[in-house]
Amino acid sequence: MKTIVNPPRSSWSKLTKRPVSSLDAIEDQLKTVFEDVQSRGDSAVLDYTNQFDGVHLKSIQVSKHEIEVAKTRISDSLKSAINHARINIERFHKTQQRESEVIETTPGVFCWQESRPIDRVGLYIPGGTAPLFSTVLMLAIPAKIAGCSEIVICTPPKKDGSVAEEILYTADLCGVTKIFKVGGMQAIAAMTFGTPTIPKVYKIFGPGNQYVTAAKQYALKYGVAIDMPAGPSELLVVADAVSNAQYIASDLLSQAEHGSDSQVVLVSLSLDKLVEVEAEVYRQLKELPRKHLASMAISNSKLICFDNKQNALDFINAYAPEHFIICNSDEEFFVNGILNAGSVFVGPYTPESAGDYASGTNHTLPTNGYAKNYSGVSLDSFTRLVSFQKLSADGLRNLGETIEVMAEAEGLFAHKNAVSLRLKDLEK
Amino acid sequence: MKTIVNPPRSSWSKLTKRPVSSLDAIEDQLKTVFEDVQSRGDSAVLDYTNQFDGVHLKSIQVSKHEIEVAKTRISDSLKSAINHARINIERFHKTQQRESEVIETTPGVFCWQESRPIDRVGLYIPGGTAPLFSTVLMLAIPAKIAGCSEIVICTPPKKDGSVAEEILYTADLCGVTKIFKVGGMQAIAAMTFGTPTIPKVYKIFGPGNQYVTAAKQYALKYGVAIDMPAGPSELLVVADAVSNAQYIASDLLSQAEHGSDSQVVLVSLSLDKLVEVEAEVYRQLKELPRKHLASMAISNSKLICFDNKQNALDFINAYAPEHFIICNSDEEFFVNGILNAGSVFVGPYTPESAGDYASGTNHTLPTNGYAKNYSGVSLDSFTRLVSFQKLSADGLRNLGETIEVMAEAEGLFAHKNAVSLRLKDLEK
Repeated sequence: MKTIVNPPRSSWSKLTKRPVSSLDAIEDQLKTVFEDVQSRGDSAVLDYTNQFDGVHLKSIQVSKHEIEVAKTRISDSLKSAINHARINIERFHKTQQRESEVIETTPGVFCWQESRPIDRVGLYIPGGTAPLFSTVLMLAIPAKIAGCSEIVICTPPKKDGSVAEEILYTADLCGVTKIFKVGGMQAIAAMTFGTPTIPKVYKIFGPGNQYVTAAKQYALKYGVAIDMPAGPSELLVVADAVSNAQYIASDLLSQAEHGSDSQVVLVSLSLDKLVEVEAEVYRQLKELPRKHLASMAISNSKLICFDNKQNALDFINAYAPEHFIICNSDEEFFVNGILNAGSVFVGPYTPESAGDYASGTNHTLPTNGYAKNYSGVSLDSFTRLVSFQKLSADGLRNLGETIEVMAEAEGLFAHKNAVSLRLKDLEK
Repeated sequence: MKTIVNPPRSSWSKLTKRPVSSLDAIEDQLKTVFEDVQSRGDSAVLDYTNQFDGVHLKSIQVSKHEIEVAKTRISDSLKSAINHARINIERFHKTQQRESEVIETTPGVFCWQESRPIDRVGLYIPGGTAPLFSTVLMLAIPAKIAGCSEIVICTPPKKDGSVAEEILYTADLCGVTKIFKVGGMQAIAAMTFGTPTIPKVYKIFGPGNQYVTAAKQYALKYGVAIDMPAGPSELLVVADAVSNAQYIASDLLSQAEHGSDSQVVLVSLSLDKLVEVEAEVYRQLKELPRKHLASMAISNSKLICFDNKQNALDFINAYAPEHFIICNSDEEFFVNGILNAGSVFVGPYTPESAGDYASGTNHTLPTNGYAKNYSGVSLDSFTRLVSFQKLSADGLRNLGETIEVMAEAEGLFAHKNAVSLRLKDLEK
């Protein structure tokens, strides 16, 4: 771990930099896969699944039978945990629904917004060593609350052509309409264009490896929307002399076990505490099953000491962490002052894993400094706001001249005329 | 104008297609300009302004003096119109502010969202024949309400090196912090990277020609966010036998005068009305100053007759118009049924120009079918939602096991450990 004490502001831009990953290297490959999936549809999808995943599938779509079998294989304790998380996530995301309020801006001029679901959405759920069924909860639940009519999952098949039972169980529980055994670039291309089997969607959500991330970015060219650009996961903890070093070390390690490129940062207002946390990290690390992955991320991590609270806050806002844990004697200062972060965890009993799984907040969050310009996924991500307006005859009388004067000043006479001929009628 | 009667659903995908424009043709040029502005900063910006706009500037930034002079040159009637529009836009966008509500999802588990401004935003205001000061209102007002601390405008200079006084006046009125005489790709590149003079921003807003649109899309590569992808402006009107053909024709023409690539569509439930509107369009067209531009758009426009209301609605949702006027005897049916549209104008006294200028709704809206997956600009566009959570000791006791079971099922033992060691402490 690298320790830095009171870094000057001139060094912050370098200190807050994440590893750069660029589309350019795989752009040619993306082009090939996208064009191929666009022209050959399901056959191309099957070929790439064979080529990239080494799986020869007969059918892309998960069958009803596979889902029914999955339901019988999940333990009662896991079912009950998933259900507890589902209830909390539903509860929190339901409060994000917005009432439509009609505003009379000028007498007779009524304006309002109404929320509409994005009709068809695609959720990408990574495969790999661990079945990320928690991501199914985080994406499918708000999609369902929003009222999206088609909720599709694409997830890479395991070597035996199956999908993790936890994913199937959770997807079914949350009302996902179709599940496909397709991963990687070909999954993103399939949801972008649609194939005879996989529906075209309007927005694609979810995490993935660098190919998936690049493919989502590439898909923007073809008119589909995405949740947000993505990079490796991140955690920043702010501590001081009274913080519990054990707790903080466990949080830093839970971030580190995501992979060698995970970003782990401790900002401490006490150098003693910083040293104590570092020792505790190495002590806990030894006992972790994924210690190989975690130790690579830990060796790249930063421990930064500030002797001034405001400087610490300014640095954190410049870094814009995905996850931000306030484990510190002045919670209020950091809660009120944090401007750029994806999700904030307050107090000693709020580990990041609470929000990763079950507290109710979403875990799909902006990384890579994108917390400066993007929100994490919420109910809003699955809806659009449509604006409406209605003018009464009086409303047009009251607003008409304003519109005419402005349209004329912009040289748009047909815009003016649309008002003038109505006003003329009203004078009759 | 092209008349189509009861088009079968199989033809809709072709009928709803907009002209395709691709980045690819100018990608090399974008790369050159972006790299050059990134490395040479202001000098590159000045060189491109000379090369593309034919203007040799000494200073990029509009001076206080220029703004003061502009204020004295605007007529009182225009000032009063702009002020009326400002009040309405402020009123409508202020109601979009959200209160933070703390939810207790499980006893002792508290979750909430707080809105935070995007700290630095860039507004692109097109130049050209007409000074689009209304776009300044539509972007700067919500930016100010959101609390963005840096609100920058880039707008191309006129041949004499000046900026339209209407733009300067409106920008100053709305609290814009800096105005730069820079347009085109070089403006977008400058706001993406920052130069010694022009600040780097986190999100870029505003309309522009195909170069600006392509540059905004290209800027995404470098970590900046944009309001939405863009295409030519669009209007769809739904009419029936009782509609006022004169009004509808004036609305279609106000869309058409934007330019030859404007998309103008009439959906009518009455063939007689369709024919009447067509005749009225040609009658009004003759009297317009911009009739040359408008007549090109009109010649590409579509008049579509449906004898079934539901089919008409389904078609409109498949088209997903930027502007949608309901000038029709069954307003409720179309208001409730519209799923995909940017902004909706209801009733005979609600011309599109009301929303373009002064009713209070935003006029920066998704075109090109993007109303299926993007909202128009609103206060939300200038903010981010940050999620917060705080667990009490009891909260962790109540939620801990759920987190442990889920983390273990995903194979993430450090995530589990962050909870377990806290729970162990609480048992002491």
